Amino acid sequence: MDSQNAASDVYEALVAELGAENVTGNADIAHSHAGDWSEAARERPTLVVFPRTPPQVATALAILSRFGQKAVIQGGLTGLAGAATPQRGEVALSLAKLNSIEEFDDIGGTVTVQAGVTLEQMQTCVEEKGWFFPLDLGARGSCQIGGNASTNAGGNRVIRYGTMRDLVLGLEVALPDGSLMTMLNRVTKNTTGIDLKHLFIGAEGILGVITRLVLKLAPKPSSTVTALCALTSFSDAAALLKEMRLHLPTLSAFELMWQGFIDKAAEITGARQPFAERYPVYVLVELLGASDRQDRAQLEAFLQRALEQELVQDVIVAQSIEQARQLWDYRESVGEMLSRLKPHAAFDVGIPVASMDGFVASVQKTLQEKFPQQSHLFFGHLGDGNLHLLSGPYSTPGMLHEVEEVVYSAVGDVQGPISAEHGIGVIKKEFLHFSRSPQELALMGALKRLLDPNNVLNAGRVID
Amino acid sequence: MDSQNAASDVYEALVAELGAENVTGNADIAHSHAGDWSEAARERPTLVVFPRTPPQVATALAILSRFGQKAVIQGGLTGLAGAATPQRGEVALSLAKLNSIEEFDDIGGTVTVQAGVTLEQMQTCVEEKGWFFPLDLGARGSCQIGGNASTNAGGNRVIRYGTMRDLVLGLEVALPDGSLMTMLNRVTKNTTGIDLKHLFIGAEGILGVITRLVLKLAPKPSSTVTALCALTSFSDAAALLKEMRLHLPTLSAFELMWQGFIDKAAEITGARQPFAERYPVYVLVELLGASDRQDRAQLEAFLQRALEQELVQDVIVAQSIEQARQLWDYRESVGEMLSRLKPHAAFDVGIPVASMDGFVASVQKTLQEKFPQQSHLFFGHLGDGNLHLLSGPYSTPGMLHEVEEVVYSAVGDVQGPISAEHGIGVIKKEFLHFSRSPQELALMGALKRLLDPNNVLNAGRVID
Repeated sequence: MDSQNAASDVYEALVAELGAENVTGNADIAHSHAGDWSEAARERPTLVVFPRTPPQVATALAILSRFGQKAVIQGGLTGLAGAATPQRGEVALSLAKLNSIEEFDDIGGTVTVQAGVTLEQMQTCVEEKGWFFPLDLGARGSCQIGGNASTNAGGNRVIRYGTMRDLVLGLEVALPDGSLMTMLNRVTKNTTGIDLKHLFIGAEGILGVITRLVLKLAPKPSSTVTALCALTSFSDAAALLKEMRLHLPTLSAFELMWQGFIDKAAEITGARQPFAERYPVYVLVELLGASDRQDRAQLEAFLQRALEQELVQDVIVAQSIEQARQLWDYRESVGEMLSRLKPHAAFDVGIPVASMDGFVASVQKTLQEKFPQQSHLFFGHLGDGNLHLLSGPYSTPGMLHEVEEVVYSAVGDVQGPISAEHGIGVIKKEFLHFSRSPQELALMGALKRLLDPNNVLNAGRVID
Repeated sequence: MDSQNAASDVYEALVAELGAENVTGNADIAHSHAGDWSEAARERPTLVVFPRTPPQVATALAILSRFGQKAVIQGGLTGLAGAATPQRGEVALSLAKLNSIEEFDDIGGTVTVQAGVTLEQMQTCVEEKGWFFPLDLGARGSCQIGGNASTNAGGNRVIRYGTMRDLVLGLEVALPDGSLMTMLNRVTKNTTGIDLKHLFIGAEGILGVITRLVLKLAPKPSSTVTALCALTSFSDAAALLKEMRLHLPTLSAFELMWQGFIDKAAEITGARQPFAERYPVYVLVELLGASDRQDRAQLEAFLQRALEQELVQDVIVAQSIEQARQLWDYRESVGEMLSRLKPHAAFDVGIPVASMDGFVASVQKTLQEKFPQQSHLFFGHLGDGNLHLLSGPYSTPGMLHEVEEVVYSAVGDVQGPISAEHGIGVIKKEFLHFSRSPQELALMGALKRLLDPNNVLNAGRVID
């Protein structure tokens, strides 16, 4: 049987089980909305399947496994590591039509959603009911909850609420053998043997397809207070973080930006420098609470003491929503930086806080020596040990690769993760050995073979 | 080779690798301090091995696997599910001598410990340095960190700080194949493929032996405020919880006690009823913060509003450490209740908050009808969906088993975990099917065979 006939057999089997309206044939794919292959990707999928129920996802996987047909799982296509980009000959399995919010528990504060619900859709739904889902990302309007879990998404509020892993109580997954494993736990404490959901959270779809999730909600905050602080050193920032965590229990973001980043942000946004003087380090903080007056008073009293102790050199506490937005604009000018510095190398590494200062100094020095014409901008979520670096523009792939080698080997030296929140996908696979031992990679491979013996699901992502 | 000779071969191999001083032969076991078999347990281990380093744990496992010698892992022997109790012919592997605090990171707030360090030893160590490890249990002086992770320990502060799983950043495990898998991650965000540490947390030692851990610390609180509230209904308690979570960000405990529990506590401790009247439901709350004055003012203002809204009927805010202790005495009279109600059935089930009121009413009614002579006392950690029930005394094993059937099948009906924090061990194994599907049990079994093909490690615990 040649590959053309095999593809047609897969198509017919999928249509027979899911209905023609849920399977898009090759000829129609150019008009489909389910993929990112129309512009950037290298390959088109041979088919796109749109299951409408969790059992349909399982059925689709059974068919794909039977034919040994490789498949790529697609959520909101906002991932940054290439895991959802089709590879040659792959069928795409889109979760776009698995998008119901199934159940909302107003008493316990949980919500049960299908994997294809967008983050924003769910956030809006629970906020209307007085609850709050704290995970938040720039891609909120497109990214899907299933993808957030598959990549263990992070964002700016991890310091207070944890990563996606900490917010998932229960999970349902369709497995390559065609079964559906339903583990829709709804309580925080559960010690009934191996907690299997963690196999799938952060696994980027190599072991199964997440179909439904039970998420833990927080009561909806009613006030936000934002401030920008100027500091003379990284060690002051680390000390400030510890003090703030103790004295300001509503602290929800602590975003560190080095001087070069603020300079570039001011240049790009056309905003002024935030303070009359320039400082080595800046911290953007946010408190989410129930009383604007109380949180503001606590923060101002705290910052007054910090100024007196010279832990902080200068501060701006936003007095309006507009001013808060202006402070966040420095941090969020990253999107524009990414465009201007193309082709760039962008990193989301994890560095133990105690090693971060030395890491930044050393990597910055190396990169400036090797690539003096390029910008090397550092910023990050200090409380989580998550450091971002944006470096560019680079004119050749060889230069990009050299930057990656410099950064990832330095990450390996301090035993940090090469990805803190974006994942490995295909683009970081070759560097994974800096963060995971041969033994860990072997165990991951064994788990992959156990659950997906025909290697049909997101093959070639994360590990080979 | 008969079993006597086999045992002697295992002994000699272990002595050759670990030294005679770290292997206690059968004849010496009665004098050993490493087991609970001297009084209560049914079997003595054939040998006790005391590895002093992580590689020695791995070496011991290699030897045990080679001989197909079954082994029981022993930590502080404070578990409540029987996982550490030796079974016939087992060697005991004690972590008691693997007890160093290896590294303390004052900047990032992490500590790296060996598995045999006691919870209290570690708590004391970090508190001396201005940090705080929030997990806390009555058994803190004996229980070991490795055991806390293996059972995903909970306790009273989970509502604020999470369970043990949430506090473990990195892990090292010795595997049955004799290898040591070192994953000593030190940052909160890490998305570098499958997060393998979660295979071992809460798995009660069936897949590997935890040898070292990196733990996440919080800044040490400097104030504690405690209060007891009287309420007219469970639904008021659930509403109070949501409001407190929003308005009192330093809320660290929210312990629910039903009337029958308070009555028994007052009887046992000889304390008076806390309030002039009796109420259907009581809640003990604790705030851990940085300012006694501020936390107390916030709590008192909050409770004043709650009284005006009749969400709360009466309150006591402790005005001294002594008074706080008296309030906690009601909750902590559980230890004495356990003694008085022997032989008892004790439960640590998980019930979705929305189902808890109905669950308690229905189970209480059933038990009172079936066993009118016995006490049936309900209390729990409402924020975590963790409900405790203490029921007894029962004169026959048949009665105990009947109570277990009533409770666990009701837990199954609301899809809760039959164990929220104590684990499955051997004593809850026959009921695990109420919380985990045949498919989940099959996958757990497959993981067990993958990592421990000779079934030497904690065999017969959790699953068969």
